[in-house]
Amino acid sequence: MVPEGTSDARVLAICGGIGGAKLALGLYRTLGPGRLMVAINTGDDFEHLGLHVSPDIDTVTYTLAGLNDTHRGWGLAKESWGFMAALERLGGENWFMLGDQDLATHVQRTLRLKAGETLSLVTTDFATRLGIEARLLPMSDDSVRTIVGTADGPLAFQRYFVGEQCRPAVTEISFDGVSTARVQSEVLAALADETLAAIVICPSNPYLSVDPILALPGFRTALEAAPAPVIAISPIVGGRAMKGPTAKIMTELGLPVTVHAVAEHYRGLLDGLIIDNADAAEADALDVPVAVTGAVMDTLEDRDRLARAVLDFAASLRLRGTA
Amino acid sequence: MVPEGTSDARVLAICGGIGGAKLALGLYRTLGPGRLMVAINTGDDFEHLGLHVSPDIDTVTYTLAGLNDTHRGWGLAKESWGFMAALERLGGENWFMLGDQDLATHVQRTLRLKAGETLSLVTTDFATRLGIEARLLPMSDDSVRTIVGTADGPLAFQRYFVGEQCRPAVTEISFDGVSTARVQSEVLAALADETLAAIVICPSNPYLSVDPILALPGFRTALEAAPAPVIAISPIVGGRAMKGPTAKIMTELGLPVTVHAVAEHYRGLLDGLIIDNADAAEADALDVPVAVTGAVMDTLEDRDRLARAVLDFAASLRLRGTA
Repeated sequence: MVPEGTSDARVLAICGGIGGAKLALGLYRTLGPGRLMVAINTGDDFEHLGLHVSPDIDTVTYTLAGLNDTHRGWGLAKESWGFMAALERLGGENWFMLGDQDLATHVQRTLRLKAGETLSLVTTDFATRLGIEARLLPMSDDSVRTIVGTADGPLAFQRYFVGEQCRPAVTEISFDGVSTARVQSEVLAALADETLAAIVICPSNPYLSVDPILALPGFRTALEAAPAPVIAISPIVGGRAMKGPTAKIMTELGLPVTVHAVAEHYRGLLDGLIIDNADAAEADALDVPVAVTGAVMDTLEDRDRLARAVLDFAASLRLRGTA
Repeated sequence: MVPEGTSDARVLAICGGIGGAKLALGLYRTLGPGRLMVAINTGDDFEHLGLHVSPDIDTVTYTLAGLNDTHRGWGLAKESWGFMAALERLGGENWFMLGDQDLATHVQRTLRLKAGETLSLVTTDFATRLGIEARLLPMSDDSVRTIVGTADGPLAFQRYFVGEQCRPAVTEISFDGVSTARVQSEVLAALADETLAAIVICPSNPYLSVDPILALPGFRTALEAAPAPVIAISPIVGGRAMKGPTAKIMTELGLPVTVHAVAEHYRGLLDGLIIDNADAAEADALDVPVAVTGAVMDTLEDRDRLARAVLDFAASLRLRGTA
């Protein structure tokens, strides 16, 4: 399924859920087995029905395993919903949909975490069992919880994202527990790896999905000092978000919905920014090296093409000595 | 679905899982709404995948709700198995089958128990939500765990019953925690209720399903002192068990597989014993009042007919003043 790697490049990708997982899949397919590490946001994790749910880890895992539902856009393909129907009948909470197969991930993860295993170990083991030859890692094994501040008060991330469907206007975003959380050790080591071809900030929501990772003590410093070229892909294309509430949140936070705002958000961290052809006219006005390409990933070919563009851009930045 | 009650009789049934639930259903249908209380064995309960599973409570609940799978003989009808397939893929324990709908019961129960609710409250609430107009209660809200002694050492009940399919020879049966467990308070009150038409020991396995209840401190004494007629239905018919490993266990424990052994097991507790027509010849040799009827419950009509026979027998015992 995964084509043979066409180079010996090794890459660290930083990502959240669905949007980021698309590029992670492209990178995985393009790099081939054993060459990709993904550091995944866990700020969206939550305890639900007594189970530890890690939405972004699961999205990346299912996507790289080829098990994700591409039509619905989340969860597993060929999923069934007997659990939810029965739970509703018993008066259980039904605002967060858990498919029958998906549930096995949460039940087994919760069991193993309670037995003392780390989220890293469970995550990498699940990935291996599902045939994934990439290193999928949580950003941290410590608990970090994204809290969305709204006019009506703070909301736990999933309450905001799923329960309220992102309707409340966002006033601020914070990350409970982040000040004492430690960056996952392999991720921290990768940030300092001189042989890495690139560190890629996927086109995930910068505020909800990437910021929890950047907020980990020492992460930003390590990223700034990283010997590998750091490349972000703008999740903003032609003044709109690739997917999800990114544009809405930027507006609510008083930011322009532009590639400039994305570049500004990542200021000091990037060696290069990839923007979509729709924003080509903005390239010269950005004070960071820019590559312009098709950044919207509708098809599998789009994912592969963008991954290739990322790797080419990284190689050119290395040659130019800007990284 | 439940026919109108044909008398104002109120009954306490004592039962385990599948075999007992058949008669509980017959009693429920015959008595009508609001007239049946069932005290259910929880010695089979266990923690599995981090979830509190109560197999007998669930069997009785699903059966009285009309949701049980009558073809397979256990679990819910129209069940799906996506969870088990996905769990197996992740390396989870797969020796105990949990259907997708069934899983909702365990997840929601575990959540509520962890929040501090009693098993009684959760059980009665689930029954109400599933439309059951009978009082389903665990024998106790305290933990009792049936341990099956075998030549190879002790086995937790489900390991013996499901994991080992009852293959190991039974040397003894014990009930962990029983010495400090309290009889569920409503059940204890019902045992002393003078207006009760009958207390029915269902044709469940006497050793594995009824004994855990009888072993609760005070239960046996309360049953001996009960003003209502106490009637058992022999689970042994014509030298064989109605279902399950009852006959095998009796043989292993050195007991004859006869209605005499059943009567002996319940000695001192019964005002009457119901035996099947196949054992009619034994009736006179039993030193307890006996009613002979069709005690095998293949069809729904069998269940109703046996329930009616139980109620008639109880009424006749009351008239005869033996209770």
